[in-house]
Amino acid sequence: MPENIESVKILRLTIDGAEETLDDAVIVESPLTIMLNGQELVTLLCSPANARYLGVGYLFSEGLIINRDEIKQVTVDDRKGVVRVNTFEEKSQLAGEVYKRVITTGCGRGVSFYSFADLQQEFKTESKVKYSVESVFRLLKDFQELSDTFRLTGGVHSAALCSNEKIVVYANDVGRHNAIDSIVGRCVLDDIPTSDCVMITSGRISSEILIKVARKNIPVLVSRTAPTNIGVRLAKQTGMTLIGFARGQRMNIYANDWRISRKTSGSA
Amino acid sequence: MPENIESVKILRLTIDGAEETLDDAVIVESPLTIMLNGQELVTLLCSPANARYLGVGYLFSEGLIINRDEIKQVTVDDRKGVVRVNTFEEKSQLAGEVYKRVITTGCGRGVSFYSFADLQQEFKTESKVKYSVESVFRLLKDFQELSDTFRLTGGVHSAALCSNEKIVVYANDVGRHNAIDSIVGRCVLDDIPTSDCVMITSGRISSEILIKVARKNIPVLVSRTAPTNIGVRLAKQTGMTLIGFARGQRMNIYANDWRISRKTSGSA
Repeated sequence: MPENIESVKILRLTIDGAEETLDDAVIVESPLTIMLNGQELVTLLCSPANARYLGVGYLFSEGLIINRDEIKQVTVDDRKGVVRVNTFEEKSQLAGEVYKRVITTGCGRGVSFYSFADLQQEFKTESKVKYSVESVFRLLKDFQELSDTFRLTGGVHSAALCSNEKIVVYANDVGRHNAIDSIVGRCVLDDIPTSDCVMITSGRISSEILIKVARKNIPVLVSRTAPTNIGVRLAKQTGMTLIGFARGQRMNIYANDWRISRKTSGSA
Repeated sequence: MPENIESVKILRLTIDGAEETLDDAVIVESPLTIMLNGQELVTLLCSPANARYLGVGYLFSEGLIINRDEIKQVTVDDRKGVVRVNTFEEKSQLAGEVYKRVITTGCGRGVSFYSFADLQQEFKTESKVKYSVESVFRLLKDFQELSDTFRLTGGVHSAALCSNEKIVVYANDVGRHNAIDSIVGRCVLDDIPTSDCVMITSGRISSEILIKVARKNIPVLVSRTAPTNIGVRLAKQTGMTLIGFARGQRMNIYANDWRISRKTSGSA
């Protein structure tokens, strides 16, 4: 059993009166405290496997780290559930900002940044990449096959960064934000280029998910489920291609469909 | 079209090469700033309909308001997206605390309160209420029938507070936390008793969802999807009955199944 799964005893009842005691798997939720230059920033509840990448990805998504060169050291204390990130320069002023944020969609980890006008300017994607509709369906199929934890427990979100050919980075986490931040963190730390990639997520596309992906300059975002109205608006404004309800047989394109080329028309 | 739905143009592609432009509905995400005694606490991204109840419910869930008698006035400015709650006593010290919190499950609105030992003591439910398995399935059916927005957009979470007979309070929101906080806020403001009720949610049961429901002293929590391991542990510790994957034909009981009486056995 992987470390992010725990076995529990359950009682299963059916509508016709049957009952059965059995072992079931639930997803593990574990606290991870992120420290930046010795200052405690936040404690996330997340899946235990991704501490290093999640810590860096969270800082990137909050705008506290812009690129890898700023990072002096990343250390993880698994026992205590702490990831410590040290940068070459002090970040104390910026770190204070992280608490003045919007708490997002009930859920919502919050964006320190919430001026849509600024956003549009700063995170506009210039990528001219195109994906065939067949390659998007193929990537979705690969994504589903990897999402074993999801099938086992129903309590986890998955995300994947993909090139035209294949899944490049994959993550599972109890939180849809964490899964994406883990991928972003890995791309930052390992210098993985993202500017012509697709991000696939199992979760909803609220504004803050869209902002995370736009901030890492990823031009195509695909979800198995729905976007919100602000998610759609931000995709249009930043030039991102936004696809929802992508589930194997069909997909809905909400913005910039020209990046998805079709057999007949090439681009609409 | 209800105010929490917006129409957008989409391009729908299918795996066999068909394409179609059509109007689709997406859920509206709207900022709501919560002010307590003139102090700006937080801005949530939420569905626009629930401002008054959501504001009060958020403050209750964060431990900043304990009961209705503390509340002097609640005013909503729909145009600006602000709810102002004033209490008879100052809460400035407590309000400072709200920012020192755990950010939960990636998602995660955060709990100001995160000592499980304390939690167990403070929020233990004493309710001896029992629900027949048939009545839980019936409430689930009613819940599904109400969740029209969900069927329309796929981007919304629903929650319902139920008695043995029927749904008493129902809410839809773009965030699973907000849907529950809205119900909690309505119960606080309208003095609706909850201590023998069932809460049904469309969303996952992470620790902070369980804590919200335990804090309002609701003894039975039912989800259409999965709990996390900490969700299960806290249910056991607080004496709550926790049911997951409740989807019309069957349900899994993770803790305190004695509150669900069955035809044959009465209680296990």
